[in-house]
Amino acid sequence: MKRILTGDRPTGKLHIGHYVGSLQTRVALQNDYETFILIADVQALTTHFERPELINESIYNVAMDNIAAGLDPEKVTFIQQSMVPAIAELTIFYSMLTTVNHLLINPTIKSESRNYGFGENDGDFSYDFSKLTYGFLGYPVSQTADITFCNADLVPVGEDQVPHLEFSRKLVRKFNELYGTSITVPDYKLSQVPRLAGLDGNSKMGKSLGNALYLSDTPEEVWNKVRNAKTDTNRISVKTPGNPDVCAVYHYHKAFNAGEVENVCSMCKNAQMGCVACKKLLNEKLNALLDPMRERRSKYEANPSLIKEIVAEGTKKANEIGNENIRQIKEKMHVTM
Amino acid sequence: MKRILTGDRPTGKLHIGHYVGSLQTRVALQNDYETFILIADVQALTTHFERPELINESIYNVAMDNIAAGLDPEKVTFIQQSMVPAIAELTIFYSMLTTVNHLLINPTIKSESRNYGFGENDGDFSYDFSKLTYGFLGYPVSQTADITFCNADLVPVGEDQVPHLEFSRKLVRKFNELYGTSITVPDYKLSQVPRLAGLDGNSKMGKSLGNALYLSDTPEEVWNKVRNAKTDTNRISVKTPGNPDVCAVYHYHKAFNAGEVENVCSMCKNAQMGCVACKKLLNEKLNALLDPMRERRSKYEANPSLIKEIVAEGTKKANEIGNENIRQIKEKMHVTM
Repeated sequence: MKRILTGDRPTGKLHIGHYVGSLQTRVALQNDYETFILIADVQALTTHFERPELINESIYNVAMDNIAAGLDPEKVTFIQQSMVPAIAELTIFYSMLTTVNHLLINPTIKSESRNYGFGENDGDFSYDFSKLTYGFLGYPVSQTADITFCNADLVPVGEDQVPHLEFSRKLVRKFNELYGTSITVPDYKLSQVPRLAGLDGNSKMGKSLGNALYLSDTPEEVWNKVRNAKTDTNRISVKTPGNPDVCAVYHYHKAFNAGEVENVCSMCKNAQMGCVACKKLLNEKLNALLDPMRERRSKYEANPSLIKEIVAEGTKKANEIGNENIRQIKEKMHVTM
Repeated sequence: MKRILTGDRPTGKLHIGHYVGSLQTRVALQNDYETFILIADVQALTTHFERPELINESIYNVAMDNIAAGLDPEKVTFIQQSMVPAIAELTIFYSMLTTVNHLLINPTIKSESRNYGFGENDGDFSYDFSKLTYGFLGYPVSQTADITFCNADLVPVGEDQVPHLEFSRKLVRKFNELYGTSITVPDYKLSQVPRLAGLDGNSKMGKSLGNALYLSDTPEEVWNKVRNAKTDTNRISVKTPGNPDVCAVYHYHKAFNAGEVENVCSMCKNAQMGCVACKKLLNEKLNALLDPMRERRSKYEANPSLIKEIVAEGTKKANEIGNENIRQIKEKMHVTM
């Protein structure tokens, strides 16, 4: 069975956008691939080095969210990045073969540097080296180590991660060629899912935007968020025909109520269904998705040490694999005692 | 007893310039400090990543040269950097708190980048990011990890290393302040020894310049190098007064024959001693220094596994210290399981 490596940065609980964007795919692939989920707490430090407590708290939330979403802890390996020294060692070796330019031109590093304020925000982007940290700049290098310390075959990615994977593939090929190693050159599987917008109409969903619908939300929290969702503001009563295109609820029906969305849409346009009824219907569909997650989660919430054990066991397995691989890599590099 | 950390990049045998510049100080300090000698094979990869076999070969030569120079393997700890994962882990953590600018402005990184061709060689130096590697740029970060993974108190340095140590001190203070760690802020001891020139008159001595007098040279090799040393080319016979200032042999008398150098100088200026006699005298003094080294070395040359054991044992000790320190650092950082 081929090996998938994917993962999350533990900087908070996972939301329904993560589910649509990646967890769903992981769940679907877990029977066809040996699945490794890396909880990237070291990588999270590149942007959250001032908030390490948040990262630590989030590790178990993220693992729990993945399991709640349907990943089977009997099959899937959960790994805490910071506890696998082989990843750090491999990062250092890869950094010798990477020019600074290869990192600076990476479009995702550029756009994320813009987001985090590591450069000019207006017009043409230019880096501000007095703000850009060395660790952040090296993110594609350490990500290559994340993927390859265990010779992963495949990484499911969103469009924004493609430049990183292309970078990784080139770097690994160059490394293999120079040292005669046989590190697996990782393939990637592009998932075409469009980004899920916030229910408040913001095109992004996130903790900092205060518009995230978490996988761990209670039915009450879900209803509160759906109830307050942004609809067509010109639709002043049930009798006014609505415009679904400008309605966040409509977009959620598309994502979570595919079977009924056409009907919902036409009823809205024809003033046959009011916004409250429409929201209730969406609420029902969301809970139909979240209820089984709540059920799976309850077992672990009652006994948090179960999650700790799952992560500890997965990390132990990762270390066995990583230590053996780094030993072989070092041997080929003549880095031996 | 306070702890010293110092070391060598294993890119070849050590020469007499290394002895004057650093080994001599190490030997003098070994009874007053717990001495750790880091054989920096990972750091050597930043500039020699294409020649890993050379690095590997040099590890044991460098250890042997240190012992031959008078470091007592019973007292001193020899450490192979690549075998201490805690250094790699600490490097990654430090990289989060270092801006790219802090590295780019480092004068030693600048001048070494110039030497290695990572930028414009003429006039005002400017980096060429398509040549500068990420690993090389991070050299002050990883050196900080080298020094602090074992909480070293003191680093003996030459003038060119002062910017690195200043960088390390700032970085460690910042790290301690942010995470509440108590990593030792390393002091440095500046050694004022001027750089030893080559016997060929070149202001630098090095393997690539073909003018190095190795600590492991045989008496024949030493005499060959001394015999061909550059003297005052205007002095055509013993009867012509010489100009010691332009004579490489004179400078070596200053370094290795302090007791007689004034006398030698005046006999040269007064045409009382010829160059051959002067060279023979220097040769004698050099062998007086090197003979005890040869004797100490012979024991290990006859049984190379002794050196391997010394490095293996020191590295084991370093791992015990490093693993415990990185555990404590991670705990303070909330990087825990």
